[in-house]
Amino acid sequence: MQTLVEGILSRHSVRKFTGDPINENDLNTIVKAGMAAPSAMNIQPWSFIIITDKGILNNLCKALPYAKMLDKAGAAIIVCGDSKEANWVVDCAAATENILLAAHALGYGAVWTAVYKYESRIEPVRKECKIPNDIIPLNVIPIGIAVDKNVKPINKYN
Amino acid sequence: MQTLVEGILSRHSVRKFTGDPINENDLNTIVKAGMAAPSAMNIQPWSFIIITDKGILNNLCKALPYAKMLDKAGAAIIVCGDSKEANWVVDCAAATENILLAAHALGYGAVWTAVYKYESRIEPVRKECKIPNDIIPLNVIPIGIAVDKNVKPINKYN
Repeated sequence: MQTLVEGILSRHSVRKFTGDPINENDLNTIVKAGMAAPSAMNIQPWSFIIITDKGILNNLCKALPYAKMLDKAGAAIIVCGDSKEANWVVDCAAATENILLAAHALGYGAVWTAVYKYESRIEPVRKECKIPNDIIPLNVIPIGIAVDKNVKPINKYN
Repeated sequence: MQTLVEGILSRHSVRKFTGDPINENDLNTIVKAGMAAPSAMNIQPWSFIIITDKGILNNLCKALPYAKMLDKAGAAIIVCGDSKEANWVVDCAAATENILLAAHALGYGAVWTAVYKYESRIEPVRKECKIPNDIIPLNVIPIGIAVDKNVKPINKYN
């Protein structure tokens, strides 16, 4: 078992997945980690969309130029923010980091693919997932079993 | 030792500190955790200011209405972003979450006190810490030994 600090330092973006599904309990734990993030005045201005449907994953894959790994992801989580709340972007970014760390901790790979602030990405995600107008998708996080288990994180400290 | 998921789920904001100092190695590990965050195109648009000087902590305490715990903090980390980079806010928010988690993992308490987007907070922090104009302090994170070790995190899942 990794400690928290080891997990933070060893996490890295994973972009190649086997196509295998993600355990549903694990997905719930991963989203719960997102919900554990701090938020300004504890407003928790977020919503999380969990996608396991292959058809939706493939549609998002086609629509998003930097999320082409979605066709081999076991699932994806979309972190959305309530645009009426002033601090939704930072709060949702903190929640996203928790999601990435929890996925890593549970043995999955994941990667943050940005949606906001790109209108050309926000609109297709909104349409595919029926997201109301005042809610904005910050990112799509493909999650899956990594093809290569031996990838080392980039050294960012030199 | 906590696992990564346990650490994420049990972390909570700590606002009352004993006034004791923070071990320097621990501070370096905490900042290293910040640097391990993902960033758009791996640009890492961040800088971290580590403050242990009591005079500076007290000056920031006086200047910042929501960071009054700084006078009892052992240290503070200021997460700054390069405003020339489009995604600095989300990248620095992810780094901040890693810092909060690493502080928690090492047995310290910490709390995210927002600076950006409040001009009335950005300016005094910039002046006190001599931060160049194109670099923006996202937050000040007081870190210390928690007075009350038995505080439980808020249940955010109901």
